[in-house]
Amino acid sequence: MNEQAMFINGATRLYGIVGHPIAQVRSPEVMTNWLRNAGRNAVLLPMHVLPDLFDTTLSGLMQLANLDGLMFTVPYKMNARALAARLMPEAQRVGGINALRRESDGSWTGEMFDGIGLVRALIAQGLEVNGCRAKILGSGGAGSAVAMALANAHASAITLSDVDGVRVRVLADQIRTHFPECAVTISESPEQIGDSTLLINCTPVGMQRGDGMPAAFGTLPSQLMVVDVIMKPAVTPLAEHARQCGCRVMNGIPMLDHQTQAVMSFFSETAK
Amino acid sequence: MNEQAMFINGATRLYGIVGHPIAQVRSPEVMTNWLRNAGRNAVLLPMHVLPDLFDTTLSGLMQLANLDGLMFTVPYKMNARALAARLMPEAQRVGGINALRRESDGSWTGEMFDGIGLVRALIAQGLEVNGCRAKILGSGGAGSAVAMALANAHASAITLSDVDGVRVRVLADQIRTHFPECAVTISESPEQIGDSTLLINCTPVGMQRGDGMPAAFGTLPSQLMVVDVIMKPAVTPLAEHARQCGCRVMNGIPMLDHQTQAVMSFFSETAK
Repeated sequence: MNEQAMFINGATRLYGIVGHPIAQVRSPEVMTNWLRNAGRNAVLLPMHVLPDLFDTTLSGLMQLANLDGLMFTVPYKMNARALAARLMPEAQRVGGINALRRESDGSWTGEMFDGIGLVRALIAQGLEVNGCRAKILGSGGAGSAVAMALANAHASAITLSDVDGVRVRVLADQIRTHFPECAVTISESPEQIGDSTLLINCTPVGMQRGDGMPAAFGTLPSQLMVVDVIMKPAVTPLAEHARQCGCRVMNGIPMLDHQTQAVMSFFSETAK
Repeated sequence: MNEQAMFINGATRLYGIVGHPIAQVRSPEVMTNWLRNAGRNAVLLPMHVLPDLFDTTLSGLMQLANLDGLMFTVPYKMNARALAARLMPEAQRVGGINALRRESDGSWTGEMFDGIGLVRALIAQGLEVNGCRAKILGSGGAGSAVAMALANAHASAITLSDVDGVRVRVLADQIRTHFPECAVTISESPEQIGDSTLLINCTPVGMQRGDGMPAAFGTLPSQLMVVDVIMKPAVTPLAEHARQCGCRVMNGIPMLDHQTQAVMSFFSETAK
């Protein structure tokens, strides 16, 4: 028992994950393990920040001289962007960040790893991302990150559906600007799969008890890979339906696990 | 290795020790151990706050919804008082705090445990504090806390010496106000022991390499107990001199160790 605790001492460096609520996040376990295994005297802590207090809490927190980095989860991926003095390429394209590191000059740099995590998880599952045809439901923070990362990984076509017609057009234009070789379509029929090889749910539908599927899907082609970025429940109604149709199915957990190494590399580049 | 890290998760509650510098503090190890042994999912972290940024850093930090308490070390024991909406009795007497806890209504209560830690350490060493005659060098944060706690523990006489004539008179008056039965004297001869049974150095002299003793002591009576509240080095020039004179000697480490249980009880009274 003593040994468990003794690894925190006066010289321990701090990282945090900022969210609301916070108790459900997995990063403190995963990331602290990673840091310890890498031989660093550092921990990643849950930091519960209330929505009304985001700006003032973060401005104080970021002045802690032994804080080296922050991650951001729901609902702060868009707010967090303003905290970064500099954005890395993926964050510039997506317009949001989920990680922030302190540089040696004290300034903060932001990057977005949600999409990269998904792309790495898909590759680990054996999916050929290069040339794939993706249909993405939802064009908020997660949907934007996933679409940009897929386009960056050479998806040949991306079809977007969202109930918010403005938001989905903004995202479509962003993809076209950065990746003109990717064929981007907006579809008002989220349940239509067409010739897509990959279906990704980036809406929150399926998270709440009593939710159905995010669209009224019929039988899905068994060669379709179906991803639901939701982590809890581990099996959503969409995932269950896809499994019954014989599709390969993935939830949000591999996406988070594959983010870990990318985020830690980002943090370590300026590690003290 | 995995087990070591796994104890931090999304539901972990946070405590911190605020100081400048911070790497030398022992509380993160001692307190985190205590919390884990008490079965709490909580850690106490080093929080390095720069002097110019104290107010803004703390106002942000204290808005973290999963932060339950803070300790304060050099140089913040006096500044920290303003953060408390309510002061416990010892903090009211001393005018400074070294611990702050969040109440269930969200407000913060402060208390000072430095002096209590010393009194408990002296009692553990077998010293009869009740009726003792103490000479205290230095009347800053540590000196004030030690003097008040000794008076509260029924020291019969306290002699104060400080290069700052105003500060020492303010402290003398505070002791007389709260403990009229304790005989308080101000001495301009710090090296004179008189009939004191206990000599306590609460000045920083002895901390820096090359420091001598805080006063030009001659041979000390061997029945005198000598305390140097300095923790590093473990043996100061004063401690070495006292040892050669055959005195019992104590440094600041037992004082900190004896604080631990008192601070943790204070934190636990409103533990979530």
